[in-house]
Amino acid sequence: MLIIITYDVSTVTAAGRKRLRRVAKVCESTGQRVQNSVFECKVNQMQLEELERRLLDEIDKKEDSLRLYRLTEPVELHIKEYGNFQAVDFDGALVI
Amino acid sequence: MLIIITYDVSTVTAAGRKRLRRVAKVCESTGQRVQNSVFECKVNQMQLEELERRLLDEIDKKEDSLRLYRLTEPVELHIKEYGNFQAVDFDGALVI
Repeated sequence: MLIIITYDVSTVTAAGRKRLRRVAKVCESTGQRVQNSVFECKVNQMQLEELERRLLDEIDKKEDSLRLYRLTEPVELHIKEYGNFQAVDFDGALVI
Repeated sequence: MLIIITYDVSTVTAAGRKRLRRVAKVCESTGQRVQNSVFECKVNQMQLEELERRLLDEIDKKEDSLRLYRLTEPVELHIKEYGNFQAVDFDGALVI
């Protein structure tokens, strides 16, 4: 399945900036960065649970916001992209 | 249908910051802001086409990135939210 992860991490404090880096790192290990705070991750159910667990370990629930959206197959019919980034290789490096 | 709109608008220049404000304004007129650059919009096909047209009028395709994700019903099964924002009222103010 394809999961879209979006997050807002408060960067007012050094601790916040550290959280932001760590959240990005977890996402990067699993999926493809498509915007500053948006990742697309192709995962199975077990990988999704692991990803969620790792993300929840990093964020501060009082300060940050984390959203996961699950797209239905075929994902090509559910994504439109415009502008200076075109995601590619959904079946390649995206798979963890 | 529920559309997730995410965007990265380059804010290096004053023109970029202006575009960012205008993109946000278009999104706010149609949906609910759930993160800094993430909106959830409940629209029908005609409204979606109008929304896309307005957004494409605002962005600079060389500088900015705009992505639209379409969620399948029931959307509650395809969204998970954690942290300091909980979207509400999907059937209220969201509808344009």
